[in-house]
Amino acid sequence: MIKVTRYAENPLIVPKDVQPSRPDFEVIGAFNAAVAQYQDETILLLRVAERPLQEAGELRVPVYSVAKQKTEIIQLKPSDFDVSDSRIVAPKDGRSDFRYLTSMSHIRCARSRDGVHFTVDDHPFIYPHNEYETYGLEDPRCTQIGDTYYINFSAVSERGICVELVTTKDFRSYQDEGVIFLPDNKDVAIFAGKASDRYWALNRPMAPSTGNLDVWISSSTNLHDWGHHQRLFGGSVQGWDDGRVGAGMPPFLTQAGWLEIYHAANQQNQYGLGAILLDRDNPAKIIARNPDPIMMPHAQYETDGFFGDVVFTCGGVVAGDELTVYYGAADTRMAAAKLSLNEVMSGLQVIA
Amino acid sequence: MIKVTRYAENPLIVPKDVQPSRPDFEVIGAFNAAVAQYQDETILLLRVAERPLQEAGELRVPVYSVAKQKTEIIQLKPSDFDVSDSRIVAPKDGRSDFRYLTSMSHIRCARSRDGVHFTVDDHPFIYPHNEYETYGLEDPRCTQIGDTYYINFSAVSERGICVELVTTKDFRSYQDEGVIFLPDNKDVAIFAGKASDRYWALNRPMAPSTGNLDVWISSSTNLHDWGHHQRLFGGSVQGWDDGRVGAGMPPFLTQAGWLEIYHAANQQNQYGLGAILLDRDNPAKIIARNPDPIMMPHAQYETDGFFGDVVFTCGGVVAGDELTVYYGAADTRMAAAKLSLNEVMSGLQVIA
Repeated sequence: MIKVTRYAENPLIVPKDVQPSRPDFEVIGAFNAAVAQYQDETILLLRVAERPLQEAGELRVPVYSVAKQKTEIIQLKPSDFDVSDSRIVAPKDGRSDFRYLTSMSHIRCARSRDGVHFTVDDHPFIYPHNEYETYGLEDPRCTQIGDTYYINFSAVSERGICVELVTTKDFRSYQDEGVIFLPDNKDVAIFAGKASDRYWALNRPMAPSTGNLDVWISSSTNLHDWGHHQRLFGGSVQGWDDGRVGAGMPPFLTQAGWLEIYHAANQQNQYGLGAILLDRDNPAKIIARNPDPIMMPHAQYETDGFFGDVVFTCGGVVAGDELTVYYGAADTRMAAAKLSLNEVMSGLQVIA
Repeated sequence: MIKVTRYAENPLIVPKDVQPSRPDFEVIGAFNAAVAQYQDETILLLRVAERPLQEAGELRVPVYSVAKQKTEIIQLKPSDFDVSDSRIVAPKDGRSDFRYLTSMSHIRCARSRDGVHFTVDDHPFIYPHNEYETYGLEDPRCTQIGDTYYINFSAVSERGICVELVTTKDFRSYQDEGVIFLPDNKDVAIFAGKASDRYWALNRPMAPSTGNLDVWISSSTNLHDWGHHQRLFGGSVQGWDDGRVGAGMPPFLTQAGWLEIYHAANQQNQYGLGAILLDRDNPAKIIARNPDPIMMPHAQYETDGFFGDVVFTCGGVVAGDELTVYYGAADTRMAAAKLSLNEVMSGLQVIA
């Protein structure tokens, strides 16, 4: 088993560290953050989940109104829906996964000089503002190419779950770049550099036809238009990853190829992290993979929370042999752990 | 109501006109054809559906094996599955739409000098041969750009339903161009020309999260990589199109903008055709739409068949004011009808 050194300071950010975007909301999650190195700071692009303050027995859900340009609170009758999953309000007829979400997420910056102690901005960085975002923005990833940071995230609305792209150069303002992956898709991780003169991205389409939930790889000449889609890898039939897989950190180049730290869930919805190595010139080719997880939920801040038993990474920092994985714990808070890159590599088994 | 003149010769092609690809298969459908004008011929790129000959009570499904490079017949126990829909073999747990298809489709050319009398090729033009195609190829569309014909179709496999592209210049051989839309997506129609210096395509992603089944529009610089995805239109809440919508013919340019003849189904799975007009320079903008269908299943060859009550177009021919719509009837056979373009246009209501 690979040695995982969790930070003694964990969790690094918890919901109460985050000021709600309005006084009648409470922050219930600050998790699944993208990671950027900007000037002398480590920036976490937090997914901040908020919900309207409510009394027991109430079901009040937040929805952004494009027409009114503000978030509204919709009052529902709990008995009209299936509310057995704390994250969603589902129709009773089972014709879709959800009708509403119980919380709305936006993206907020937390900034640090040492990568351990973070100060969370008072205001959202990216807040829902178009028809694809009415239920919120989730699970960002950030890839630096030149002096531009490409930030992608799941945009959730009644249109489904699409993936949008924005760019920034200063983490104060950003530019909308539109929908880059059609619904339903999520967990898009853009490679930190080109291979064979194209940009590459992992992504995870959801196919209702066959129930397929695998990681695919796509490529692009311009980071906006994506094609040459190929199915890359799935989970196992029985094991820690027999439920679903999805990209985690943006893949980064090592001497042996592109290393990807991804997440997988088993059928009991326990989320761990895995490692897979892709060919330097053709990342659609798998070189090696660790059949076992490199990290599973274990600490109490990982096992207990809004949705427990989850470690889920959207980014990290590589410095020499040291890989710092920032991760969301139990869909509630942020934590970090250090791993040896050499140890991660030595756990990989070559795929013939 | 717009006048629709069905061909007196309808149906133009029926399953028994098509030689099966192997002697132990029977052709059960020759329908939903793409249309091309090539030299002095009209070519229909038929979707030919075949299934293994079988006795009553048997359930034998065709699946292409990539490893063995041939189609195999898999024997199933009918009682293990939900076979209430004649098109699919579904899991009883409802976790996916299907596990297998009851037939496998490939693409076959039928050629005609007069657009009415067709001779069907003896052999498939495009037959399953990769991991995305193991359950077959369905519902092609063909768009001519310069002297190259771009043919896209749904590729069905356990990976889901993706959209692949091939190109041809002679309708004898073709070149694979890969997966252009991730699963699940279908009904891709590439515009017959550029707008604002980009190529455009309608497509219909399927979002299990919210159950959304709307038409989206995407654009491209090279016909391979697609982006700037925008949701374009959906069906009505109650009406002929309250079940789902999807693109039909590749949109073609008129003086008023891009005209698209699309299909829609109501909740009883009755499929008709509609008309919508898109802005010449920005096809993501709807100019006008006919709230009523321009054609509904009516003739017996449209109401009775493998899957009845269906008119479904993948292509047509425009000559002056005359729009010839070729269409699949009842998921079984091909037919054609003539409409006046002026009449179609005058049925459109401007969208403010």
